Amino acid sequence: MSERANVNPVDQSGAAGAVDGDFALLDAYWRAANYLSVGQIYLLANPLLREPLAPEHIKPRLLGHWGTTPGLNFIYAHLNRVIRARDLDVIYICGPGHGGPGMVANAYLEGTYTEVYPTITEDVDGLQRLFRQFSFPGGIPSHAAPETPGSIHEGGELGYSLAHAFGAAFDNPDLVVACVVGDGEAETGPLAASWHSNTFLNPVHDGAVLPILHLNGYKIANPTVFGRMSDKDLIHLFKGYGYEPLIVSGSEPGPMHRQMAATLDQALDRIHAIQQEARAGAATGNAMPRWPMIILRSPKGWTGPKEVDGKRVEGFWRAHQVPIDKAKENPAHRALLESWMRGYEPEALFDDHGRLRAELRGQAPQGARRMSANPHANGGLKRRRLTLPPIDGYAVGLERPGGGSVEATRVMGTYLRDVMRLNADARNFRLFGPDETASNRLDAVFEVTDRVWMEEIEPYDVHLARDGRVVEILSEHLCQGWLEGYLLTGRHGLFSCYEAFVHIVDAMFNQHAKWLKIARGLPWRAPIASLNYLLTSHVWRQDHNGFTHQDPGFVDHVVNKKADVVRVYLPPDANTLLWVTEHCLNTYDRINVIVAGKQPSPQWLSMEEAKRHCEAGLGIWGFASNDDDGREPDVVLACAGDVPTLETVAAADLLRQQLPSLRVRVVNVVDLMTLQSKDDHPHGLTDAEFDGIFTTDKPVIFAYHGYPHLIHRLTYSRTNHGNFHVHGYQEEGTTTTPFDMVVLNRLDRFHLAIAAIERVAGANAAAGHVKQRFRDKLIEHRAYVCEHGEDMPEIRNWGGWT
Amino acid sequence: MSERANVNPVDQSGAAGAVDGDFALLDAYWRAANYLSVGQIYLLANPLLREPLAPEHIKPRLLGHWGTTPGLNFIYAHLNRVIRARDLDVIYICGPGHGGPGMVANAYLEGTYTEVYPTITEDVDGLQRLFRQFSFPGGIPSHAAPETPGSIHEGGELGYSLAHAFGAAFDNPDLVVACVVGDGEAETGPLAASWHSNTFLNPVHDGAVLPILHLNGYKIANPTVFGRMSDKDLIHLFKGYGYEPLIVSGSEPGPMHRQMAATLDQALDRIHAIQQEARAGAATGNAMPRWPMIILRSPKGWTGPKEVDGKRVEGFWRAHQVPIDKAKENPAHRALLESWMRGYEPEALFDDHGRLRAELRGQAPQGARRMSANPHANGGLKRRRLTLPPIDGYAVGLERPGGGSVEATRVMGTYLRDVMRLNADARNFRLFGPDETASNRLDAVFEVTDRVWMEEIEPYDVHLARDGRVVEILSEHLCQGWLEGYLLTGRHGLFSCYEAFVHIVDAMFNQHAKWLKIARGLPWRAPIASLNYLLTSHVWRQDHNGFTHQDPGFVDHVVNKKADVVRVYLPPDANTLLWVTEHCLNTYDRINVIVAGKQPSPQWLSMEEAKRHCEAGLGIWGFASNDDDGREPDVVLACAGDVPTLETVAAADLLRQQLPSLRVRVVNVVDLMTLQSKDDHPHGLTDAEFDGIFTTDKPVIFAYHGYPHLIHRLTYSRTNHGNFHVHGYQEEGTTTTPFDMVVLNRLDRFHLAIAAIERVAGANAAAGHVKQRFRDKLIEHRAYVCEHGEDMPEIRNWGGWT
Repeated sequence: MSERANVNPVDQSGAAGAVDGDFALLDAYWRAANYLSVGQIYLLANPLLREPLAPEHIKPRLLGHWGTTPGLNFIYAHLNRVIRARDLDVIYICGPGHGGPGMVANAYLEGTYTEVYPTITEDVDGLQRLFRQFSFPGGIPSHAAPETPGSIHEGGELGYSLAHAFGAAFDNPDLVVACVVGDGEAETGPLAASWHSNTFLNPVHDGAVLPILHLNGYKIANPTVFGRMSDKDLIHLFKGYGYEPLIVSGSEPGPMHRQMAATLDQALDRIHAIQQEARAGAATGNAMPRWPMIILRSPKGWTGPKEVDGKRVEGFWRAHQVPIDKAKENPAHRALLESWMRGYEPEALFDDHGRLRAELRGQAPQGARRMSANPHANGGLKRRRLTLPPIDGYAVGLERPGGGSVEATRVMGTYLRDVMRLNADARNFRLFGPDETASNRLDAVFEVTDRVWMEEIEPYDVHLARDGRVVEILSEHLCQGWLEGYLLTGRHGLFSCYEAFVHIVDAMFNQHAKWLKIARGLPWRAPIASLNYLLTSHVWRQDHNGFTHQDPGFVDHVVNKKADVVRVYLPPDANTLLWVTEHCLNTYDRINVIVAGKQPSPQWLSMEEAKRHCEAGLGIWGFASNDDDGREPDVVLACAGDVPTLETVAAADLLRQQLPSLRVRVVNVVDLMTLQSKDDHPHGLTDAEFDGIFTTDKPVIFAYHGYPHLIHRLTYSRTNHGNFHVHGYQEEGTTTTPFDMVVLNRLDRFHLAIAAIERVAGANAAAGHVKQRFRDKLIEHRAYVCEHGEDMPEIRNWGGWT
Repeated sequence: MSERANVNPVDQSGAAGAVDGDFALLDAYWRAANYLSVGQIYLLANPLLREPLAPEHIKPRLLGHWGTTPGLNFIYAHLNRVIRARDLDVIYICGPGHGGPGMVANAYLEGTYTEVYPTITEDVDGLQRLFRQFSFPGGIPSHAAPETPGSIHEGGELGYSLAHAFGAAFDNPDLVVACVVGDGEAETGPLAASWHSNTFLNPVHDGAVLPILHLNGYKIANPTVFGRMSDKDLIHLFKGYGYEPLIVSGSEPGPMHRQMAATLDQALDRIHAIQQEARAGAATGNAMPRWPMIILRSPKGWTGPKEVDGKRVEGFWRAHQVPIDKAKENPAHRALLESWMRGYEPEALFDDHGRLRAELRGQAPQGARRMSANPHANGGLKRRRLTLPPIDGYAVGLERPGGGSVEATRVMGTYLRDVMRLNADARNFRLFGPDETASNRLDAVFEVTDRVWMEEIEPYDVHLARDGRVVEILSEHLCQGWLEGYLLTGRHGLFSCYEAFVHIVDAMFNQHAKWLKIARGLPWRAPIASLNYLLTSHVWRQDHNGFTHQDPGFVDHVVNKKADVVRVYLPPDANTLLWVTEHCLNTYDRINVIVAGKQPSPQWLSMEEAKRHCEAGLGIWGFASNDDDGREPDVVLACAGDVPTLETVAAADLLRQQLPSLRVRVVNVVDLMTLQSKDDHPHGLTDAEFDGIFTTDKPVIFAYHGYPHLIHRLTYSRTNHGNFHVHGYQEEGTTTTPFDMVVLNRLDRFHLAIAAIERVAGANAAAGHVKQRFRDKLIEHRAYVCEHGEDMPEIRNWGGWT
């Protein structure tokens, strides 16, 4: 290990081992946190070991992760010191979220836990309840979960801590986000990319992130890549990433306290200097600040048992979870556990009532300075409603339904521009995206802001600035992680993304949805703004990208989550998109998915009509129907999504021209959740409402934006669902014209019209002729498009709608 | 740009601009590739500009990406030089897959394209067809797609090139994988983590990866993070990652050729030296080799128009796609295009017939040395069937159905151990996973191999070795990317993953499934081994992790893809898992998903029964049913997945004990695809078969491993589907006992039995009493588990099955 020597570059003077007077209280506080952490993993009763440890004091199932916890507690105690010394506003992001017992222990030591959960009192009984509830049925999970005060990051799935940290720091100039990154987590892709977040953090109006890479060397059963790197390589790497790396390394508490304190002071001095310089206007040049980051090497399972059953535990992967696993059944194991716990000297830490001794309580900061009580980590407390302009001012005028040729997202861009403008002083709204804001036609926002960029800016660069509020990097992971961090600390935003590639963050979506589900059930957590997705560049318009860029399945993924958390909107034109945008920006504790095209498309509804339509979530479009005599139609043509809507209206028109006696009703769906039963989703129509629109027995030809089965799934319990025939994406088509794409997936006007004819009972010979005519058109189309590389205008426009 | 000076560290002697004699032919070859690239983007006709360029020669829709292409062609031409000079075996992975025109151009220049697609002849007509087909309906996509000879990497979604490259290099000692990483792609998480792949590449038995980070400075509309970094930071960063970085930088072809050639020679000398030393046995120490990597700075859209309409194009993001976008309509644009294309001097590159001139043809390597014809890039050609041991030797003996307590994946581990052993000489089988091989009970494989590790190995490390065949890193992206690269070059493997976190690779799964769908349609691409997932640590057994680790939705995601590509298996015990494992390892061109538990569980079928059951894909379990008198049952209890199977059998038993007159049939489903209609999936049962098992009108209580709607979706078109009542995961439960988890999601034996009773027509008062008894048991259970932290044995075991 010559290249990973336990060298302290900050302070090498101290004698190993001894904890000197300056750090005696801090060390005791650390021991208290460690004691409470072990207690949570093991004990049902006898929390302060006031009697000898007996089998009945030990939990029947031992669950939890010890390995990372003492290091997390060490960092926590040292952060407490600097918060008090400097009156800092700090939140703690715990990348190794498995170290939940440590985060809970610290919240308890600070008194926050008892404030939030009054039954967990600061006495022996409370301690017993604290221990018992951990990883226990009806209790709390083992991670730094929503239930944990002070946490905005669960760490169940690893990789997102640093992105969350930067998201939290944006527009929070007085905040320091201490972010512990585990060396396991550091191996993940999203975390590896997250180091580049410094390219987007402005020292003038953003806060600081202090990354602490915690190298304890091991994952579940393997060394870590970072843990085995030499100090030299680590320093190169983080210098390359643009940081000033500082190393703290060792295992003896005495020297480690001195090293850590000196290094933290050095880092915070540096942060202060960077901010002072930038805020004094001195740092407007081309040099990105070199923020400090700390590399902490400490043993896995530090202060725990060195060996169990003759096998190495401390400083090895065997310390990862429960280091002594037979403490209930095996007396030798139990004795080892007892001596381990007594080694922290609980009697010196807690008073007769079981409360943390007064001199130790002074180690924690007070009030909102406590990291467990910092309001940024309960972001809803900080949330201010966005000032939103009335949408009417952005409405697209309608000459006739189907008129115009409007890029819906471009209109949305003008609205977002003014949202940006109206909230510029509050600095609480940002757009995130992987280099696609302009490509997605949202570029009106560049009239009032720019893309943020802290690396060099060249004279010929366009809309690039130090203080931009549009954040773009070619990493969906970072866009999502930053936005989550931004929302969780009480701000607002929108993530615009290619529809196919939003699957990159499927797993992150899961984690955020799960966070929201739990957080909504905690009365002390104030609501946060919803996470809003704009999915554009969608499956039907991948002319120049083709098959790999076609996947509308994110909506399916979303719908698997709890109904009260998710919403899906498919506005068919610009005015409906405006309504949906305003609506989503006003919601909280949800995930809203908006799917909308960026290509020139017809406009269907005036703003007044759009409002009524969107408020209902779906509706019959009279202008496109010919069933207005009060009787039921012969067939319902339903649609959701901009391209399916165009094809459906055109199909209805074809049918009216060719088979005028056929009574066709056109239904458009904006809010996909209305299709579900009211039992399954709060937006669901009642069965009576649903039957009134879709009938109870007529065929419904449903043109849907994505994979067809979702419509079946949502309408499963409806009376008429057996008559639903859904057209959607079939994984067909590649680089071709947009119209050819719908033809290849049988979502075009001709296929829809043919399907309608085939499903109407008693279709006659005339109908057969019409069907054949439509089929001929499709054959003609395919031949033409493959010959000419573009659509045949007279086919494309047949039906009167292009 | 002082820190990003165009400095050539290799050779600074040449006069700028001039292409000297040594590189004249190479330069001409590069120009030919560039010419063909532009031609593909723009031209329908007049391919060699033998007449003035007219509007009708230009495509109606201009689609493609010019920006990255000239750099890709430059690298290609230089790789050709060293392949010829050193007789190297090289494949080219094109991270900026958008640069498809360049990859197609080079395959054409090498003659491979014509060999594979005989209509694209090497003459003027063939050129015209080559140009026309690009991004044209019925033609080829704009990326380096499966259709592109020499490609194993599409690059539609960015981030995976380097992981593919390392996967290709594993166990291919004589191969050099040149991997071009775009600076946009370099911003993604998966790519950022991929640099650490060097920790897992052994110079003795693996090949070499030569990463070429291509900095052209811009994405769609932004500078890139890496493009704006200083050379000093870049060198630090890649030294930190463990590489020896070499920089090539400039824009004048003359000096750039000299620099690139010298740098490539230096890199290949270094690779050769590392391999020689390692293979001579000299490098068994603790120092990981410092492989070379090249950083190439060249202008975006290099050699293209400098300005269009007065706006900067070459060397800026405006060169990203089609730099001159009105060439058909606008004469000035057309003239600019014409002069750009003529600047490559097509008449000097192609002879009268339109064929590449003979002296230039000599620039390309011959036969299988051509990168476009390298058999590693058509991996099926290299694939050898795995030697698989007969599964009978691993069978678990069955005393009675439901007996035993077997960890199914542990049994699978013994089988995989011998697969590993039997194919050790062929070196064509590996296991990949995020640090979970042992945790997933596959540790028998460590009897015959180890985990591969090239960083330091300590004396106390366990199963860590330089030549291990188990590849573990805490990055699902890398596991997936490496395995894809390994399979695409003709080998075999398995990825074992936590079920919830496999969503991390949802998007990668999409891309691979799309690749397979297209590749299967190309007769010249030989089949490759299937991508096999083992999803264990599944949703029902997250006792110590809880809510964040619970998500069975990957199967839903998988089922959205084309039926002929995907298979999903839910073996209920060890013997069925053995059958499924052997079966999957024998398949090709598919993605197989196996979901199986790792916890001790009852065993249901003898090996002979397991074989019959798995071959059918589903079947009636007579031992658990009481409908064996030839009449139809009153109710069908169906199940898929190990935990649902246990609960279903127990429910059937409860019903038999409590309501002996109720005729219950138990059906177990192993192959989920059998539920689908035969029209939808080749494994689907016929409707007659399905009706025979599930009846046409009896209630079916279906206990399913995942989200319930999937069963509805798969059985949608079946006669009896209206009577299917599916229990599955409802996003309920967190850290609790495994039995409590099923109770909270209503998948337990009591809820299933109650559902059965409620659905049977004419249930009587006795049935009502039984129902109430079951409900009481559930209430009793919840109280007990929250009090004691473990299940009440007499409830857990009620029904005779634990």
